[in-house]
Amino acid sequence: MSLKYGIIGSGAIGGYFGGMLVKGGHDVHFLFHSDYDFVEENGLKVDSINGDFVLPAVNAYSNTHDMPPCDVVLVCLKTTKNKELKHLLPPLLHENTVVLLIQNGMGIEADLQKLFPNLHIAGGLAFICATKMGPGHIAHLDYGKLNIGSYSCPDNAVLQQICQDFEKSGIETEILNLQEARWKKLVWNIPFNGMTVIMNTTTDALIANADMRQLLHRLMIEVIEAGNQCDLADNPIPLDYADEIIHMTEHMTPYSPSMKVDFDSKRQMEINYLYTQPIEYAARAGYNMTGTAVLEKQLRFIQSTYLIK
Amino acid sequence: MSLKYGIIGSGAIGGYFGGMLVKGGHDVHFLFHSDYDFVEENGLKVDSINGDFVLPAVNAYSNTHDMPPCDVVLVCLKTTKNKELKHLLPPLLHENTVVLLIQNGMGIEADLQKLFPNLHIAGGLAFICATKMGPGHIAHLDYGKLNIGSYSCPDNAVLQQICQDFEKSGIETEILNLQEARWKKLVWNIPFNGMTVIMNTTTDALIANADMRQLLHRLMIEVIEAGNQCDLADNPIPLDYADEIIHMTEHMTPYSPSMKVDFDSKRQMEINYLYTQPIEYAARAGYNMTGTAVLEKQLRFIQSTYLIK
Repeated sequence: MSLKYGIIGSGAIGGYFGGMLVKGGHDVHFLFHSDYDFVEENGLKVDSINGDFVLPAVNAYSNTHDMPPCDVVLVCLKTTKNKELKHLLPPLLHENTVVLLIQNGMGIEADLQKLFPNLHIAGGLAFICATKMGPGHIAHLDYGKLNIGSYSCPDNAVLQQICQDFEKSGIETEILNLQEARWKKLVWNIPFNGMTVIMNTTTDALIANADMRQLLHRLMIEVIEAGNQCDLADNPIPLDYADEIIHMTEHMTPYSPSMKVDFDSKRQMEINYLYTQPIEYAARAGYNMTGTAVLEKQLRFIQSTYLIK
Repeated sequence: MSLKYGIIGSGAIGGYFGGMLVKGGHDVHFLFHSDYDFVEENGLKVDSINGDFVLPAVNAYSNTHDMPPCDVVLVCLKTTKNKELKHLLPPLLHENTVVLLIQNGMGIEADLQKLFPNLHIAGGLAFICATKMGPGHIAHLDYGKLNIGSYSCPDNAVLQQICQDFEKSGIETEILNLQEARWKKLVWNIPFNGMTVIMNTTTDALIANADMRQLLHRLMIEVIEAGNQCDLADNPIPLDYADEIIHMTEHMTPYSPSMKVDFDSKRQMEINYLYTQPIEYAARAGYNMTGTAVLEKQLRFIQSTYLIK
């Protein structure tokens, strides 16, 4: 039986993954927001390092009430919009729907589970450089892997089928321990997302400075220690994972993380799930993320200076 | 016997205190840098909330080799210039000269004592809003108290005489435990100097934001705990001193701390004695100033983006 996919949040990530699934022959239904009319008229265009393509007709919707129940719902919203899931999701759900949260941060699944206690939830981490160029137009610039893991699925059967669908559509995937994957991604996200905003610069400028590199490394150690204490005692992330991440970033193309892009566009930043929730989660486990807490407050101050509340 | 005063660093603080001493009838000798020619020609002008005055002729010098030995040398340089004291001070010293470092931070006296092992050193903390308006022209905007304490004076006799001279010249003074006074001043300086630079704003904007106020408070607690562990175990600063300082700052005129003024003028910031040395001093005493350490690295990064090294 083939899976029916729904995509909530058809921006760079959702548009790319959904577009690749359509191109791979799958049944995909997209929720669009401001791009709906444009996509209805013109379809979806993906400029990818692996080859450009256009999908002249996609199943586009402007409201989830018009969408069919789906077997898999990819949530590719900014987490700042996750409050809307309460109203967006129900029309898409049947008894065994898996909702895959392709988002960054800690505590996202737990918050959704509170709203939908019986929902099968999985988390996804996209390792991808993609950006929206215009309405219905996505550029895929680099990488592209999708790691997924169960949060409250009865077993991994559907996740394995999802992986097969993605792989056949040209997207590398892996099934991982979700909490470990989330903490590992935070090892990069917590230092670099916040610091590029606070210092108003790019990753390469930060990492080229010896003092800053030392601070970034210290923050990485803090995230690793928090993760190990919260979830990973049996299989801890080794501390030298921080060196690996520093080394990887030194060899990356200069990059504005998503939070910096949000800041530059005067959009709300994902402070809650990237900073506040990991800090609170770690504190409940008895670990104080003191450096991360400085960044969190600085980011909240910065956001208050430009965001109308 | 009346004291002969030398002033090294005749900017806002040195010019104001020196000018008040001259006005009070004392024998004062000023080292000027770029302002020398102007002051030789025009004298020194002080616009003070307590009354403006002009000193048409002051003892101005452009080189300490031309200055007489003094009983008291007020060092009012930025601490970033303290390396120069090695060459500036010797002509001003006799056997019992007291060098009074009217500067901010931790470790300043210890560094000078290494250079001059037999020197009588005292520290001073100026609670004053003063600014240089132009060559030989100082504005005294608010406050004005000078607290002093011995670092390596044989006794408090000369400090008492200095206080009398200042009091008679219209400046309130007090003799305090120097380490306690320095830590207490850091309780304000560490949060506000760095944060106004990093957030590129003024004290009132910081303190009006609830998240930032919480962070500032946490940094204050960190400084208090560091001070208590380093020097003040017998007579610790109470933790609610932080609330006092928050309350005081809420009722202050919006203010750019000296580090922010340096940053805005693209001058070197006093990171070493305000951040690095307190952090290292506390670390040697077994206390980790983890929040302060984030600010230190951020400031070093910021300085590297504008300062030619």
